[in-house]
Amino acid sequence: MTLTPEQQAEIDALRSQTQQTLRATVPGMEAHLYKAYEVLDHGFIRVIDYMGDDSAICQAARVSYGKGTKSVQNDEGLIRYLMRHWHSTPFEMCEIKLHVKLPVFVARQWIRHRTANVNEYSARYSILDREFYIPAPEHINAQSVVNNQGRGGVLEGEEAARVLEILKADSNRAYDHYEQMISQEGQDGLARELARMNLPANVYTQWYWKVDLHNLFHFLRLRADAHAQYEIRVYADAICKVVADWVPAAYGAFEDYRLGGATLSGKALDCVRRMLKGEEVTQENSGMSKGEWREFEGVLNDPA
Amino acid sequence: MTLTPEQQAEIDALRSQTQQTLRATVPGMEAHLYKAYEVLDHGFIRVIDYMGDDSAICQAARVSYGKGTKSVQNDEGLIRYLMRHWHSTPFEMCEIKLHVKLPVFVARQWIRHRTANVNEYSARYSILDREFYIPAPEHINAQSVVNNQGRGGVLEGEEAARVLEILKADSNRAYDHYEQMISQEGQDGLARELARMNLPANVYTQWYWKVDLHNLFHFLRLRADAHAQYEIRVYADAICKVVADWVPAAYGAFEDYRLGGATLSGKALDCVRRMLKGEEVTQENSGMSKGEWREFEGVLNDPA
Amino acid sequence: MTLTPEQQAEIDALRSQTQQTLRATVPGMEAHLYKAYEVLDHGFIRVIDYMGDDSAICQAARVSYGKGTKSVQNDEGLIRYLMRHWHSTPFEMCEIKLHVKLPVFVARQWIRHRTANVNEYSARYSILDREFYIPAPEHINAQSVVNNQGRGGVLEGEEAARVLEILKADSNRAYDHYEQMISQEGQDGLARELARMNLPANVYTQWYWKVDLHNLFHFLRLRADAHAQYEIRVYADAICKVVADWVPAAYGAFEDYRLGGATLSGKALDCVRRMLKGEEVTQENSGMSKGEWREFEGVLNDPA
Amino acid sequence: MTLTPEQQAEIDALRSQTQQTLRATVPGMEAHLYKAYEVLDHGFIRVIDYMGDDSAICQAARVSYGKGTKSVQNDEGLIRYLMRHWHSTPFEMCEIKLHVKLPVFVARQWIRHRTANVNEYSARYSILDREFYIPAPEHINAQSVVNNQGRGGVLEGEEAARVLEILKADSNRAYDHYEQMISQEGQDGLARELARMNLPANVYTQWYWKVDLHNLFHFLRLRADAHAQYEIRVYADAICKVVADWVPAAYGAFEDYRLGGATLSGKALDCVRRMLKGEEVTQENSGMSKGEWREFEGVLNDPA
Repeated sequence: MTLTPEQQAEIDALRSQTQQTLRATVPGMEAHLYKAYEVLDHGFIRVIDYMGDDSAICQAARVSYGKGTKSVQNDEGLIRYLMRHWHSTPFEMCEIKLHVKLPVFVARQWIRHRTANVNEYSARYSILDREFYIPAPEHINAQSVVNNQGRGGVLEGEEAARVLEILKADSNRAYDHYEQMISQEGQDGLARELARMNLPANVYTQWYWKVDLHNLFHFLRLRADAHAQYEIRVYADAICKVVADWVPAAYGAFEDYRLGGATLSGKALDCVRRMLKGEEVTQENSGMSKGEWREFEGVLNDPA
Repeated sequence: MTLTPEQQAEIDALRSQTQQTLRATVPGMEAHLYKAYEVLDHGFIRVIDYMGDDSAICQAARVSYGKGTKSVQNDEGLIRYLMRHWHSTPFEMCEIKLHVKLPVFVARQWIRHRTANVNEYSARYSILDREFYIPAPEHINAQSVVNNQGRGGVLEGEEAARVLEILKADSNRAYDHYEQMISQEGQDGLARELARMNLPANVYTQWYWKVDLHNLFHFLRLRADAHAQYEIRVYADAICKVVADWVPAAYGAFEDYRLGGATLSGKALDCVRRMLKGEEVTQENSGMSKGEWREFEGVLNDPA
Repeated sequence: MTLTPEQQAEIDALRSQTQQTLRATVPGMEAHLYKAYEVLDHGFIRVIDYMGDDSAICQAARVSYGKGTKSVQNDEGLIRYLMRHWHSTPFEMCEIKLHVKLPVFVARQWIRHRTANVNEYSARYSILDREFYIPAPEHINAQSVVNNQGRGGVLEGEEAARVLEILKADSNRAYDHYEQMISQEGQDGLARELARMNLPANVYTQWYWKVDLHNLFHFLRLRADAHAQYEIRVYADAICKVVADWVPAAYGAFEDYRLGGATLSGKALDCVRRMLKGEEVTQENSGMSKGEWREFEGVLNDPA
Repeated sequence: MTLTPEQQAEIDALRSQTQQTLRATVPGMEAHLYKAYEVLDHGFIRVIDYMGDDSAICQAARVSYGKGTKSVQNDEGLIRYLMRHWHSTPFEMCEIKLHVKLPVFVARQWIRHRTANVNEYSARYSILDREFYIPAPEHINAQSVVNNQGRGGVLEGEEAARVLEILKADSNRAYDHYEQMISQEGQDGLARELARMNLPANVYTQWYWKVDLHNLFHFLRLRADAHAQYEIRVYADAICKVVADWVPAAYGAFEDYRLGGATLSGKALDCVRRMLKGEEVTQENSGMSKGEWREFEGVLNDPA
């Protein structure tokens, strides 16, 4: 359970107040507003606000006065064209604001995406809650043996139990000590900005995160990818569901051209052309390194 | 007259369609939506969309679940505190989208503000209209004799008439030639991407411009300033009026701390301290250059 | 002739002064420094400074203490891996600063790339020179009939002559009037910030432009592309030559993965897989629109 | 001791290799290159590369062909003018690249400055060292009682000892467990990307950080400020020393106008004007809140 009754009451209050607006609205997105969608064991994403819709993308691309829409089909075709040809500015005309609760080690990956606006809960100013990410047993994996930057099979038996035990015990001890250090009972109490340094990276933080659709798609392409760390991928997946309801045409184009697409190098394209002519192409005569060839084969064989 | 009847009809259609939304709305801003506010002789600004309000600034600063507002007074105090202490991220949580029609030489100044999203009307793809900025007689000024980057007194009599005549005649001739070159009557017709190069910098263009409130304030501080070129200042002034209705508390703080404020150097502060102790401070004993001292005196004497 | 003797003397003076440095240097790049490479009829690019080399990319990727290089081959493999997997931050560790002279209509396209630092010659402060871009006869093209945003065949005969005559006459007349308006002989003289509005978009401006290698590659991918307008493409081509000497491994990877590569959508990849299995795939059974299919065929047939 | 002998040898090797260059060089900065300046107990900053000098700022402001320098005095005057009038782009023409080793909780503050390039040591890919920030006794402070976001007096006696004991013990235990979890002796070994979550925020990380001078000044203004947390301020202070040797004129202007200056609101300026006329101004008749007035008095009384 990630929300206190007071927090839930605040959310409910906001959801009960409908306003009139002349702005573009998306019914599917209104249904998401303010709700907390659970991610991991204590995290969530909540849509706080949004600006624009599929039509706004087209309107900006056409620099038109009104809705800029002749028909939905036209709009979808234009959006697919814009996505295919890497036009970024029309997608920047849509904006979304999320409230996200997430472990610090996920926040540290997330913040590398610099083209967004962020307000994070301040542990200099406020006291963090006793909430730590403890992975579910099926997400405690070994180090990958093929990829230095990834995880392999699920740990089992005693090893898994030991890991869980360590994570739980260390988190709780760290939090106990955090509370002891900042306590002002019978002592001065350590400054919060110092005490926080004792908390491990699985402690939860939260922030408001606002980003335009172009940069959000970039984030989702990297973080909803199979190579992304599981703990950030589940946030990306949750956001994907919301975006699909917000801008269905743009999301459809994103799925086809980005999530489901692949970039082939000049060498790889040359191999494809040779293969289509019936030539036998192997790594040895491809001009590619072994790593590139393995990835190339992956693209050709796997329905990504 | 800047809008065709068709454009006005599109705007009216949008203004007639009220939607229900759970998002933060600002009645004062709803009244502005889509309307074209005239600027210069053929230009305008139109609010196309907005996200957030004064409460959203506080909500983000507090990373709170609901409205994050205890009372309006509290919010205003917090907003003033944030502005005073150069906190930028809470103001980034508000966003505005404008449709702007403006002369190219104004657009070239405007675009230097890089932290915004822009979609400009494409003169590679489309044909520009015969609309040129011709200054009103009271805005045809001489080169400043004190400031290399500014204008002095209003030109009068024959000189003013000559300038106006040149601007009008050259604009029209350039547009006649533009039309002749792209015409496909009896000839192939020059590519639009080439023909546009013959048009002078007072031709009007238009764009969708989307920016967050922090960066908008930065733009307004520089462009609503007395030293900004008149032709961009009038756009900034028109935007200021809209922003005052959108986020009144933030705009009030902006007026006090930025538009009406001034930054004093360490040397200048030292002079103020000496003056307050009754010391006679002059440029010679101030440690400032003549230029700095003149600006310092301006700050002390003028109610900006 | 784009440089005055005084300018050439300043450049020669800088090229004659060698300094000692501990920083990474690239001999091939030192040979380019300060020289003006002509572009179009009066334009140029000049390398003013650079930071980093191929090794710096690897050093940052490895966050290492020294050169971070085990062998050149290793470095090249790492750079290709980083490029293939869309790692952007290591490439951001290299930076280049250029001095560019270019027509205003090219500058207006160029400046849309916002992630760069720019200082442009100020026509509010200074007087522009009488230099206008007049296309060579082989670059005066008709509007494309297949692509609304492009040019078709070269104009010939009288039509081409008319275009050239218009461009030359209007440019010169506009400049004559510019000089007349700002003249202070027997009159006050119009402010420069106003007079400049009479100059057409083929007048030359100049700026200092500083950008990191990642964002430069993005610029080059779009502007060295066959679909870019010729007048900006020649600048991109000139920059490509310099970059190839500066960071040969990174540039090689860029050529293979970006300039020579192509992104295929999920649908397109599916078609490739079907074709490789011997299936007859046509636009009708591809799931692609006609436009997409045409582009897809272009990728499969043309050695880009 | 923050560097291993191998690391020191790599640094020494780089410092022993002088190259010839035509680029702008700064002898004072060459003396800093690659050296590790210690910060906190295990951290450091190292200058890896730099671009530009004071002259480069003026050269860009003037868009000139050569050094753009008439005399050093002129340059300094121009730089002070640019700083005073908030011109940002000329300062963006200088760039610096640092290698920084710092505790994670400091890195989390630092990264909020988004307009920089960063490559951080990857704890998904690599194993972190057993290095934790343990504050010196004189930097273990109580929570401030006047400022929710700051620290008060130094903790003493048993309380200080308890804090130190907790920080040391928890850090070491967390690292022991980190090693145990990733160990592949007799078990599969937990993935590094998961194991890192057990490490507290005082563990050291490192990164390459590249930023232009304008954005660096913004960082230094906020982080070399008395209100910044001590643990990031010492990094800012160390960088200030380097920058003073790199661009002395720009740094001097920064000290006077930013570090030593203050921004007064319209209300505050009005009070100053009234005071200079001999009027008795108090908080009650100032129009300022108590908090504002207290800060205003601080500016008037304290030689910052």
